[in-house]
Amino acid sequence: MKTNKQWRLAARPAGLFKESDFSWREEPVPEISDGSVLVRVIYLSLDPTQKVWATTDSYLPAVPLGEVMRGGGVGVVERSRHPSFAPGDIVQGMFGWQLYAAVPAQTVNKLPKGIPLGAFLGVLGHIGLTAYFGLLDVGQPKEGDTLVVSAAAGAVGSLAGQIGKIKGCRVVGIAGGDEKCRWIREELGFDAAINYRAEKVADALKRECPEGIDIYFDNVGGEILEAALGWLKLHARIPMCGAISQYTAAEMRGPRNLSNLISRRAKIEGFLVSDYMPRAAEAIPKLLEWMNSGRLKFRLDIVDGLEQAPRAVNKLFEGTNLGKLAVKVSPEP
Amino acid sequence: MKTNKQWRLAARPAGLFKESDFSWREEPVPEISDGSVLVRVIYLSLDPTQKVWATTDSYLPAVPLGEVMRGGGVGVVERSRHPSFAPGDIVQGMFGWQLYAAVPAQTVNKLPKGIPLGAFLGVLGHIGLTAYFGLLDVGQPKEGDTLVVSAAAGAVGSLAGQIGKIKGCRVVGIAGGDEKCRWIREELGFDAAINYRAEKVADALKRECPEGIDIYFDNVGGEILEAALGWLKLHARIPMCGAISQYTAAEMRGPRNLSNLISRRAKIEGFLVSDYMPRAAEAIPKLLEWMNSGRLKFRLDIVDGLEQAPRAVNKLFEGTNLGKLAVKVSPEP
Repeated sequence: MKTNKQWRLAARPAGLFKESDFSWREEPVPEISDGSVLVRVIYLSLDPTQKVWATTDSYLPAVPLGEVMRGGGVGVVERSRHPSFAPGDIVQGMFGWQLYAAVPAQTVNKLPKGIPLGAFLGVLGHIGLTAYFGLLDVGQPKEGDTLVVSAAAGAVGSLAGQIGKIKGCRVVGIAGGDEKCRWIREELGFDAAINYRAEKVADALKRECPEGIDIYFDNVGGEILEAALGWLKLHARIPMCGAISQYTAAEMRGPRNLSNLISRRAKIEGFLVSDYMPRAAEAIPKLLEWMNSGRLKFRLDIVDGLEQAPRAVNKLFEGTNLGKLAVKVSPEP
Repeated sequence: MKTNKQWRLAARPAGLFKESDFSWREEPVPEISDGSVLVRVIYLSLDPTQKVWATTDSYLPAVPLGEVMRGGGVGVVERSRHPSFAPGDIVQGMFGWQLYAAVPAQTVNKLPKGIPLGAFLGVLGHIGLTAYFGLLDVGQPKEGDTLVVSAAAGAVGSLAGQIGKIKGCRVVGIAGGDEKCRWIREELGFDAAINYRAEKVADALKRECPEGIDIYFDNVGGEILEAALGWLKLHARIPMCGAISQYTAAEMRGPRNLSNLISRRAKIEGFLVSDYMPRAAEAIPKLLEWMNSGRLKFRLDIVDGLEQAPRAVNKLFEGTNLGKLAVKVSPEP
């Protein structure tokens, strides 16, 4: 009998995750009921929003203490009691921080063959859809717009910036560290990069966006949002995708210059990729085409072994991941 | 020869206005050049945004020190060197804090006869247009929506709430003091009123809006905005009209829960009435009809004498005005 391995949430994290916020459990692989599939998880996606899920009710209820930590991933069907799925199918879904997941088949997407699995963690997964709809639907870029992206070397930010380039924007990325800045400028084709660890973002924005910001794609909140709010053009749009600076902050802070939205006739709009799932079929062919033609690059930061997940997830908040962070839970077939 | 009387800006105000931030000047009434009119000001409108104008560059340049303080008003043409205007015409424009203003005719609106002049300070002036377009265009109310308005007994807020009622919203007003709350509930027909001086707004919003807030018409920023952000429904809209709590604050603060916009898929959008001036003709007939049918009530808080302006304007920031604040500068014809 095979053994499942799990990280269950043991405590509500404060600040960074601690390993003691989770408990490791090994137990028999579950039976599946009619309509369900048993998935062996290959990759577990680590995302900033998991800090929110572990902490508080938000757009989803908080993960209950004692339950398997929530997380999306890519896996392979090992057993199926649903006619649409067969063993060997590669699937995507919310499998949790565990090796085996028994999940209702209707919550699972079958993935096409012939595409590297890692693509479904990034450009062809929820990350790619977040960047696509957040920028295009909420941000409404026009050719010649100045687009600023924070966490620009991160999973969503790096794609949002490249999509901005494809749409004819001048794109300025904000990232932490010279290597990240070099990567987005030299390899992803951003027009400029600001290293927020090395200089004052408010000053750098004035230098790199001499006429101001049309779109600020916000992944971080906090001080960088405040800096962007201080340098908006008229009718600027701020798609609010995340606020990672706040997820581990000891004290939350809001932008003190929020009322600049009035004089700039500008808006901040929050969005969630889940609302766009019904429109995924609009985006996926374009993302795939851009990926295949080399216009949309991404990189993965793969940590090996489910055991590493509690430590690995903090890389997101420390800014030490280089590319889309995921855990390799078990081998690809 | 007639004498003009003026308040000129002498210093940048910090916190509330002080009388020493202005200097009183008496000088001969100016000559007018071709294309200009000489207006005797009857009513000077006092508005929260004047604090912004006196302090800093914003959507308009800061009023230069030594210049007449900027302000809108209603007056009567005494001399005209433009064919469209004749002595006796009642006009509206940016006349400044003074008794006589020589202004280019194209900056002046001639007002129709037969309507009390005070209406042009409120429901038929920039105040009414702000409430109309801010609520209807930015807020996009639907029948049955829950609308919360701050500074609800103020000039704009009281109209925005009543327009919300006309559009079929459940309307909850937030105001400072029992008399203001009684007025908006009993005389303006708001469904509920919250006295922010007497109770915690966050708690009161949960009581008065059990299902959450669809539209928060924000006039105040600060803590009340934070309370509203904590209780939004999905896809909520926040038209940001003003941030009066911040205009005299020793320390600006932003809402610490701004990232709630993400989970609520909500937006904050700033707007300025000046952008809607080309569409004023859409709004004025409706505002007039609603006013004449008694569905849109307003009241004026008139302070007598231009000399009083520097002290009177602080009523806005202390919350002691009851209705649209204006100074009676000279008699109606």
